[in-house]
Amino acid sequence: MKQYLKQDEWRIIEEGFDPDHHKASESIFSLGNGQMGQRANFEEAWSGPTLQGSYIAGVYYPDKTRVGWWKNGYPEYFAKVLNSPNWIGINVTVDGEMLDLFKAQKVDNFERILDMKNGVLSRRFSVILNNGKRLTVKTDRFLSMERPETGVVKYTMTPNEDCKIIFTPYINGDVENEDANYDEKFWNILETNAVLNKADLLCQTKKLDFRVSYAMETELVGAEASEEQPFSDELHSGNHIPVLASKGKEISLTKYVGVANSMNHEKDELLSVARKKASEAKTLGYDTLLKEQIAHWNEIWEHSDIKIKGDIAAQQGIRFNIFHLNQTYTGEDERLNVGPKGFTGEKYGGSTYWDTEAYCIPFFLMTSPQKVVRNLLIYRYKHLRKAIENAEKLGFTNGAALYPMVTMNGEECHNEWEITFEEIHRNGAIAFAIHNYIRHTGDEKYLEEYGLEVLIGIARFWSQRATFSHDKKKFVILGVTGPNEYENNVNNNWYTNKIAQWCLNYAREASEIVKKNNPGRFSEITKKVNMDPPTEMGVWKSVAGNIHLPYNEEEEVFLQQDGFMDKEQIMADELSPSVRPLNQHWSWDRILRSCFIKQADTLQGMYLFEEEFDTETIRRNFKFYEPRTVHESSLSPCVHNILAARIGDLDKAYEMYLRTSRLDIDDYNREVHEGLHITSMAGTWMSIVEGFGGKRVYKDGKLRLYPIIPEQWKEYSFRIRFRRHDLEVRVDQEQVEIISHAKDEATLTLYDKEISIPAGKSVTIPLNIKYHVKK
Amino acid sequence: MKQYLKQDEWRIIEEGFDPDHHKASESIFSLGNGQMGQRANFEEAWSGPTLQGSYIAGVYYPDKTRVGWWKNGYPEYFAKVLNSPNWIGINVTVDGEMLDLFKAQKVDNFERILDMKNGVLSRRFSVILNNGKRLTVKTDRFLSMERPETGVVKYTMTPNEDCKIIFTPYINGDVENEDANYDEKFWNILETNAVLNKADLLCQTKKLDFRVSYAMETELVGAEASEEQPFSDELHSGNHIPVLASKGKEISLTKYVGVANSMNHEKDELLSVARKKASEAKTLGYDTLLKEQIAHWNEIWEHSDIKIKGDIAAQQGIRFNIFHLNQTYTGEDERLNVGPKGFTGEKYGGSTYWDTEAYCIPFFLMTSPQKVVRNLLIYRYKHLRKAIENAEKLGFTNGAALYPMVTMNGEECHNEWEITFEEIHRNGAIAFAIHNYIRHTGDEKYLEEYGLEVLIGIARFWSQRATFSHDKKKFVILGVTGPNEYENNVNNNWYTNKIAQWCLNYAREASEIVKKNNPGRFSEITKKVNMDPPTEMGVWKSVAGNIHLPYNEEEEVFLQQDGFMDKEQIMADELSPSVRPLNQHWSWDRILRSCFIKQADTLQGMYLFEEEFDTETIRRNFKFYEPRTVHESSLSPCVHNILAARIGDLDKAYEMYLRTSRLDIDDYNREVHEGLHITSMAGTWMSIVEGFGGKRVYKDGKLRLYPIIPEQWKEYSFRIRFRRHDLEVRVDQEQVEIISHAKDEATLTLYDKEISIPAGKSVTIPLNIKYHVKK
Repeated sequence: MKQYLKQDEWRIIEEGFDPDHHKASESIFSLGNGQMGQRANFEEAWSGPTLQGSYIAGVYYPDKTRVGWWKNGYPEYFAKVLNSPNWIGINVTVDGEMLDLFKAQKVDNFERILDMKNGVLSRRFSVILNNGKRLTVKTDRFLSMERPETGVVKYTMTPNEDCKIIFTPYINGDVENEDANYDEKFWNILETNAVLNKADLLCQTKKLDFRVSYAMETELVGAEASEEQPFSDELHSGNHIPVLASKGKEISLTKYVGVANSMNHEKDELLSVARKKASEAKTLGYDTLLKEQIAHWNEIWEHSDIKIKGDIAAQQGIRFNIFHLNQTYTGEDERLNVGPKGFTGEKYGGSTYWDTEAYCIPFFLMTSPQKVVRNLLIYRYKHLRKAIENAEKLGFTNGAALYPMVTMNGEECHNEWEITFEEIHRNGAIAFAIHNYIRHTGDEKYLEEYGLEVLIGIARFWSQRATFSHDKKKFVILGVTGPNEYENNVNNNWYTNKIAQWCLNYAREASEIVKKNNPGRFSEITKKVNMDPPTEMGVWKSVAGNIHLPYNEEEEVFLQQDGFMDKEQIMADELSPSVRPLNQHWSWDRILRSCFIKQADTLQGMYLFEEEFDTETIRRNFKFYEPRTVHESSLSPCVHNILAARIGDLDKAYEMYLRTSRLDIDDYNREVHEGLHITSMAGTWMSIVEGFGGKRVYKDGKLRLYPIIPEQWKEYSFRIRFRRHDLEVRVDQEQVEIISHAKDEATLTLYDKEISIPAGKSVTIPLNIKYHVKK
Repeated sequence: MKQYLKQDEWRIIEEGFDPDHHKASESIFSLGNGQMGQRANFEEAWSGPTLQGSYIAGVYYPDKTRVGWWKNGYPEYFAKVLNSPNWIGINVTVDGEMLDLFKAQKVDNFERILDMKNGVLSRRFSVILNNGKRLTVKTDRFLSMERPETGVVKYTMTPNEDCKIIFTPYINGDVENEDANYDEKFWNILETNAVLNKADLLCQTKKLDFRVSYAMETELVGAEASEEQPFSDELHSGNHIPVLASKGKEISLTKYVGVANSMNHEKDELLSVARKKASEAKTLGYDTLLKEQIAHWNEIWEHSDIKIKGDIAAQQGIRFNIFHLNQTYTGEDERLNVGPKGFTGEKYGGSTYWDTEAYCIPFFLMTSPQKVVRNLLIYRYKHLRKAIENAEKLGFTNGAALYPMVTMNGEECHNEWEITFEEIHRNGAIAFAIHNYIRHTGDEKYLEEYGLEVLIGIARFWSQRATFSHDKKKFVILGVTGPNEYENNVNNNWYTNKIAQWCLNYAREASEIVKKNNPGRFSEITKKVNMDPPTEMGVWKSVAGNIHLPYNEEEEVFLQQDGFMDKEQIMADELSPSVRPLNQHWSWDRILRSCFIKQADTLQGMYLFEEEFDTETIRRNFKFYEPRTVHESSLSPCVHNILAARIGDLDKAYEMYLRTSRLDIDDYNREVHEGLHITSMAGTWMSIVEGFGGKRVYKDGKLRLYPIIPEQWKEYSFRIRFRRHDLEVRVDQEQVEIISHAKDEATLTLYDKEISIPAGKSVTIPLNIKYHVKK
């Protein structure tokens, strides 16, 4: 764990200059606006360790797969998050010496600040160059949330003696991906232009012909430029802007940048769009753009903020997570999704994992307008054809769909057989998200429009993937990897079998709903997918009704997989701290053969289908699995937090919360330099709202709350959207207050009691922890 | 299947020129002499598809591993078979045009012949160049078996009009490996020299500093050379030898080459050794060297030939296999081993697999002097330290040894977790080979000198690897891959558990033997390996005595692994031919979940421990597993052949024989261009000697024979060494004749009857197939 950041309610603050922290900070201080994102690379030259990262949402590169050993069914290519031309760069020379903090004589009063309230990244520092020149520098930048094709950088310097400064704002097309499989470059630069105070660049991905245009305009304040030299070559464009700076006088160069891409514009208009965006931005000016930015974020915080009193670290942690989630995905565009690293790194190539359905959707369902999650669902609908092709590659037929484990465009991007081919439970999460969306929104129409086709494809997959064991006289699902990736290729993973069963049942139920609501549409769909409903639904019913769900009689628990009890049953707290995390200390062999669980697996299933189980069953399973779980996935502790809260184990719930909330800020896993764990941030939000807040929406589509509060906190509050409701929930050690911000009366169940709250009013009742453990 | 070669008893013959066959022929016509090997690349320029391959035994390169996803415990580097400088090359220009069959106007009467009787590779062809010149060409080359550092090429041309020919014999250091992970070159060329009719080259591997020297001398007959130009540059050396050739007059250039390497000589003497070898060879002359070669091969054939009458394809096939085995490994050097591709290709990087112990040792035990197999065993003894380190990487302790799956120097070279970490049965084969050697030779001393230490390391591994299942109340071995690599990460693979049990018992037995024979040495060993015999042997006994060996009551068969009967039980003959081989048509996912078996697994165990099982048990298991086995490993059919013969199923035995004997000549798997299946060739030999010949040596160390003969053959005969015996076994449709070539009286069991054969005499008894099925 590397704690070098200052705690603050609304800001992430790095004080003091340490190049060893730079790559981590580049991740942590990243900015995004849904359409593009940018690691916190410095604007000026930096010759130290860095991961350059500038990303355009939806623009990817099908890199040729390179693996040691090939297996039939693997993808030949896979989509990678693409590092794109650098548009933030402003080189600075002072009397001929390049400003480069890595090489400078001295750096003082360094401060890097991410203002999460307003979405602005700033730096402040004093520097002594090797030629003895001293300067103070301020930089501020943001990616406009209001204008997603606009970014702004303001670079302000004050020299402490007269000197000649050359600013060189530029656009650099000579970039690379660290994770390129063959060290290739991924971009062709098609055009570069520069005129006085303006420059642009048009580029194209070497495959698929995505095109992106960049245009900048600059504005100098505090000095006169002379002999400016616009420049452009094959890979770069920019302006050299020499100024004579006076001692103690502040000079600022503001760079307004427009970025446009071919997903949103005609190719031949891209340069003019980017130029227009840059020009508009300059016309509006920095201050106006900043005002818009502040207002936009204010609106977001209004609906998604969580306030924690009495624990500043927790407060900072949860806001950090909410901030990054919102700047990664805005829900405007159903072609986009939420990558595990968002716009903060290349790692994990590809954008979409089951993380989206299992973690992000619960977050967005409660904090964003309905269309946001709807767009995330449509994203998968649009990939249905590819999911069917993917299943066909593996030998499935008749429209069976297997969604990829990792994808950008619907094609599989992963190439470990035990994951690619076996971690098929992802298909379940994708179906469950449809149900989750509908039970939260009541939007049953979604089934008719999109949902049912996806559910049919998924049900077909499960009905084929389950095979009949003459030994067990049950349907079995052999050779899978459950959410616990520390077991591979197991038989009858309880979670997988359970969610397969649920999918088969839900596909039948959804078919009946559509058939009833809109018989015409139903026959249209069944015709389109070539389905004879009675026959196929009969098969689904038969498989679901007779699927093997492993159970251990002795422990009275659902069994993670058939062979789980053959393993040596050692508890995680018997392990020496020196071997944790296991994945950094133990061989893969040893991990696989151990009973240690990487992330919630059987418990993940109990979380999803919680209403089916009584408290005692949940408790028994929790007590069995929690001591065997090492939580070496960032997606794990939140589920354990929620179930611990559910069974009234507040200490365990709080312990689990701590493991998730500051994962990246405190760099628990020493890997934050590679990027942030964006999707697991939603899990932290779930820990508070579903864990401590006890928010539930079961199959009946009603909102329930069972709030509790850790003793370490004075108070916490969150705000949730639910159908036409807009509720603020405030919990302290004494009572729960619920304020309705909506226009209609709100109804919900609080501690199993139905309550109504008139519009604009609030209800306060005493905290009642024991309700939490009652069904 | 690509059948383009002519059938012949002693020769492999390619008639007619087809560039599409060239890479396959480069493999099939390969030459070796135990110390070096050479694919059948052309001497003259060839611009068509080719895999250049020139290999020096024991010289390898630790290439940096490149895999998509890393796992703890994987090797960072692994040893690769190294393509070495080309010493066979002789470029030829005719009136200025380069002779290159790929570009020539016409090639006629092309013939490529591998004379297996004498170990010589020849070509004959007529060619019309694009400049209209016509020539007939003969080439002959061999790698001297008698002088393993010597190779000879004789290049003979007859032009049909006067012309100027320039011969350019050369040594080329500018070579690469096709399988280099980072496309790097692996050699530094340290020195090149050339003088009139001589040239040399000294090179060094970029890592590990293996050095190899090459020297050539040339001899021109049939014309006078003038204006010869020796040349050498950074990577090459050679001579340009211009001659005026007369119409119809044969000219030959003979290239005598010496090759020496730093495993056998001091580094600073390498060039002089190579020069000396080349010079000696030239002094002796081509004809003398050839005579030696013929005599050497004659001696080999005397002891290892198998004759088959009435089936020329089978005759050619078995000789092809015996030829390649003998030129791959001569048993002179205990640092060497038998790579799956020998000297015929790069594929499978690394040299040694369990193939050596499971297949090659049975062959060499019966056809070669005792020291040959002893050296193969010592090879593993010398890797014991590395095997212990390998096990330590995986978390094992106290001297437990896990031999690598693939290796050149004792380090693991494989990087699929399901193989590297899980295909641990290899450890069993290595222990079994010690037992096999001793029961064949009676050399119990080997245990004291080397064997026991290896057996202790292996027993320690198994005793730690087996864990106690409280569910089963048995020791279990979880997470393994058996010989059937079409199942990965299974629990309690019968073969693995069985051989683990055997290893634990044999290590105890071997300990008792050494303790009894040589108590001083026993305490020396136990002290060295830090073993308290009663304690450890007690643990071994307890694990072996209570190990879970899965059994299916319904089918009354040993069960390949715990979950095998949960799989859909479909038989291989229900599969459409269009999906065979499965590994080229089915996804890995589908293969893994199917019941189809890549290669003998449970049956491999029944083969090894055959004497423990009665005929009915063998038959039941054979009848259960054979229909589920797709034999997609070249190592599989021979085991099925032997067991089919054992249970009297002669048709099946013959079918299995056919699948193995001409695998490479007929390119069944369309991959022969990558190299030959050297180690599985030993399986073909086993099919005849142990399958049809019914040769057995059980634990009592006695030789048994139960010959049968396929109805397709008139007669077959083989010769075997066994202790002091040297027996020729001739079987026809009527009778069995056994001739003793040894000096002492031979005793053996023939059809369960003890017989004695005086030295130089023979015994003939009627063929008695029914004996074969009797125990």
